[in-house]
Amino acid sequence: MFYNTENWIEKNEYKNNDFDLFNGYSTYETLRTYNKNLFAFSLHYERLRKSAMFLGLDIPKYEIMNEILNEGIKNQNCKEDVRIKILINKYTSKKKSFYAFIEPLIEIEELKESGVVLTISRERKPKNPVIPYYVKTTLNGYSMYLRQKYNAYYDAIILNEYGYVTEGTKSNIFMVTAGVITTPPISSGILPGVTRKVVIDLIESFNMDFEERNIEVWELLSADEIFLTHTSVGIIPVRRIVPNFTFNAPGITTETLMNYWKDFIINKNEYWE
Amino acid sequence: MFYNTENWIEKNEYKNNDFDLFNGYSTYETLRTYNKNLFAFSLHYERLRKSAMFLGLDIPKYEIMNEILNEGIKNQNCKEDVRIKILINKYTSKKKSFYAFIEPLIEIEELKESGVVLTISRERKPKNPVIPYYVKTTLNGYSMYLRQKYNAYYDAIILNEYGYVTEGTKSNIFMVTAGVITTPPISSGILPGVTRKVVIDLIESFNMDFEERNIEVWELLSADEIFLTHTSVGIIPVRRIVPNFTFNAPGITTETLMNYWKDFIINKNEYWE
Amino acid sequence: MFYNTENWIEKNEYKNNDFDLFNGYSTYETLRTYNKNLFAFSLHYERLRKSAMFLGLDIPKYEIMNEILNEGIKNQNCKEDVRIKILINKYTSKKKSFYAFIEPLIEIEELKESGVVLTISRERKPKNPVIPYYVKTTLNGYSMYLRQKYNAYYDAIILNEYGYVTEGTKSNIFMVTAGVITTPPISSGILPGVTRKVVIDLIESFNMDFEERNIEVWELLSADEIFLTHTSVGIIPVRRIVPNFTFNAPGITTETLMNYWKDFIINKNEYWE
Amino acid sequence: MFYNTENWIEKNEYKNNDFDLFNGYSTYETLRTYNKNLFAFSLHYERLRKSAMFLGLDIPKYEIMNEILNEGIKNQNCKEDVRIKILINKYTSKKKSFYAFIEPLIEIEELKESGVVLTISRERKPKNPVIPYYVKTTLNGYSMYLRQKYNAYYDAIILNEYGYVTEGTKSNIFMVTAGVITTPPISSGILPGVTRKVVIDLIESFNMDFEERNIEVWELLSADEIFLTHTSVGIIPVRRIVPNFTFNAPGITTETLMNYWKDFIINKNEYWE
Repeated sequence: MFYNTENWIEKNEYKNNDFDLFNGYSTYETLRTYNKNLFAFSLHYERLRKSAMFLGLDIPKYEIMNEILNEGIKNQNCKEDVRIKILINKYTSKKKSFYAFIEPLIEIEELKESGVVLTISRERKPKNPVIPYYVKTTLNGYSMYLRQKYNAYYDAIILNEYGYVTEGTKSNIFMVTAGVITTPPISSGILPGVTRKVVIDLIESFNMDFEERNIEVWELLSADEIFLTHTSVGIIPVRRIVPNFTFNAPGITTETLMNYWKDFIINKNEYWE
Repeated sequence: MFYNTENWIEKNEYKNNDFDLFNGYSTYETLRTYNKNLFAFSLHYERLRKSAMFLGLDIPKYEIMNEILNEGIKNQNCKEDVRIKILINKYTSKKKSFYAFIEPLIEIEELKESGVVLTISRERKPKNPVIPYYVKTTLNGYSMYLRQKYNAYYDAIILNEYGYVTEGTKSNIFMVTAGVITTPPISSGILPGVTRKVVIDLIESFNMDFEERNIEVWELLSADEIFLTHTSVGIIPVRRIVPNFTFNAPGITTETLMNYWKDFIINKNEYWE
Repeated sequence: MFYNTENWIEKNEYKNNDFDLFNGYSTYETLRTYNKNLFAFSLHYERLRKSAMFLGLDIPKYEIMNEILNEGIKNQNCKEDVRIKILINKYTSKKKSFYAFIEPLIEIEELKESGVVLTISRERKPKNPVIPYYVKTTLNGYSMYLRQKYNAYYDAIILNEYGYVTEGTKSNIFMVTAGVITTPPISSGILPGVTRKVVIDLIESFNMDFEERNIEVWELLSADEIFLTHTSVGIIPVRRIVPNFTFNAPGITTETLMNYWKDFIINKNEYWE
Repeated sequence: MFYNTENWIEKNEYKNNDFDLFNGYSTYETLRTYNKNLFAFSLHYERLRKSAMFLGLDIPKYEIMNEILNEGIKNQNCKEDVRIKILINKYTSKKKSFYAFIEPLIEIEELKESGVVLTISRERKPKNPVIPYYVKTTLNGYSMYLRQKYNAYYDAIILNEYGYVTEGTKSNIFMVTAGVITTPPISSGILPGVTRKVVIDLIESFNMDFEERNIEVWELLSADEIFLTHTSVGIIPVRRIVPNFTFNAPGITTETLMNYWKDFIINKNEYWE
């Protein structure tokens, strides 16, 4: 028997399965379109596949998901680009299916011009020897919690248990100091963001000075420029970290990357297959 | 637009809310009946209330939940006792409602007589400075993951990041050494189990020697007796921890507690209000 | 047989004891005089006593040490104040004796006026569950190592394993933000400095706003004023933390404390007993 | 001015140097002879060199140290083998010299036959990001402290901060389970023992099954055989870990290694150069 928000319902097929719908044992992805085309689906699918494998969940074949999503995007009949959330749990796993939620994407051009304001979370990122950082799962819900707690800011920077910079609750972070671009390594405890990867591709295509290494808080706070990357917006500059640390926004390096971003991704076939 | 396992569905009221249904941002409780009566609901409700408060979720009033659950148990019309899972997420929170799943409880008397076999998880319990241990939420999904991984055993003992004994994936743990009963403290990183609390009440009612303190692995492995506590079974003895550590099951202390368990709880009004 | 820097020496009483002279199994204290009088000896003696007790070392009685040190200071016949280092190891322990080294104290008035420059150590303070932080022993030699490594700066701030501010290699640290004075608690992993304690006495005598609590790096770097305390200099302002974080030096709060420092200590009998 | 155990001494050349003699800023090695010949000096010298380099200390050239030590051993005129302790601190560093202490080695054949009894230290090995584990220095004095604290046992096993097995206070540890020999890796936080290395050479010369990996406490306690290695004794079996975990001592694998030990080292030129 199952009580939902309305009533007690006699269910022939009572099982724990209903609990499985809601218990967060799931993996998910957030995607977007550019010019109505699904961006970097192969990278998202690959990450989804690894997460699902770790959790013992089945996902549909690449071609099937791709087709269904493209059909859904077309049906949406949107004037603008859209954001898509995909979720796989035990329930969809059994049916070799998935949930997808499509909604219009709100572009935030003015923020890209002025830069955003961040805070630093006082809560450290949990050190998790059970579920590896590369697994994008709602079983690791601290970032969902922190996003809500610090929603007065564009994002909150999370430090790991040793106090090194890791990522935001919904973004990866890069700093520029004396012309060198630096971002924390996967081993610092971050999710390997798809946009992060594409931005690194872009940086390397320009042969810019670039390092992946642990970043101390004081290094971040004395940087010349800081920018975030995440699926919905691509690259976005940071102008202030509260209380009083300010940065060029966009600085010259950040602006260069932002300017070349669209051209770069649109002309690379591998992001559109 | 929303794609579920069957098809794309045009929804008038599109929202992220559908994602909220599944994203694990929720708190839950598992309860049971004894003699068809809901056991220790006030203790479970109190824990649910604290968890929900931390997560910013609303829950129905005590009286309302109590009434609905009792009605549901009656409707179930079961010959045996039942197990009830309650879940509150953002969706139910908005409606001041909740999900409840009721199913027949399978008693496992033979295991209580022979004792169960445990393993020790190689994965350490994540140290989580974001979500406190007292919050029972699917946002902290490692125990769900470990329960599945080690399902060849009755339960898997999880050590904390320092290697101290904490709890099982679905139970609390007690050891008896030279007549002294010991269990890890809340500060070791455990969920404050309701049955754990009631067992401590029982131990104290007998004036038995009892300590809450950090337990080293070798202390556990050289104990005379070990038992687990969890809602579905109450108290259950451990006869072996793999590979080759054996224990009296049930030992004399464990057996005493098991024998007095039902009488103790049935005669204490506070567990039935 | 014992080979020292000159030669092999036949020793009648050969023993490991010679190794004990040098192996760092010792506790020590650094003291100073004001107006040729030994400052806060009772506080230093109390800390020495606790350290020695932990290490199982014997120290001479308070009155005997006090007398010997005062005699030594007199013999020194110095025009200026002196600094005294005391060391107790297994060798002196057996003889109920101690080593003491007296040297002229170089006052650094100009630094007190202009403030000093600090760096932040990239090495985290070791988390040491063997030897508690209150034990001042050469068995815990990381600060000696870091002092040498970062000797281009007045001192290096050490963070603990979680990235919180603790202390310098030879000093304790205070910050002032919006009028509130804050210093890390003993539990952050610091040695309870004698001057730190006396400065807290002074702050409390003025009823100034004061907190002992964990300090995040970004809180320190956005402070209005920072000052250090250590035996040789009392209170000293910080004007910069490299690379580019600057502070009022001395700020108004720091200057107030510096101005009242000598009067405060000279008039309090408990520091001269 | 300098007060030693006897009196105040006027020293012409007053310096902190006297404090440097005793402050534990030093590196050291323990060696032994077999058949009156210095064993594995090149391995000890290499480790000494690395430790000294980290600490910024100078050591004499290999040939000079070798010659002086051999001369000292000859002068000792001992009937039995000897143990030699070498120590380098800032004082000897300046003089390009060193301290050496030679003493007769007491062989403990009966313990090799019956096996020794160990305890497990309740104190975790400090995690030290300042001084790497390969540096053998009295600045890291916890093992000296623990050796004294647990001196009722032959040695105490130290766990690292995560609760994995590392080493004893004066020995490295090996376990044998189902014919596989396992020892903790350097990365678990151990000193790379010279005898440990030679034993691994011996194991590999026999093509025995061997692994270097993190060892959980319960793996150690359920092993078939355990043995220790350290310079003074070579290989020594463990018969019990308190309170009640027992092992074959010596087990068949341990006995094999013990039997071939002397032949193996004596016939390998690299240990005698």
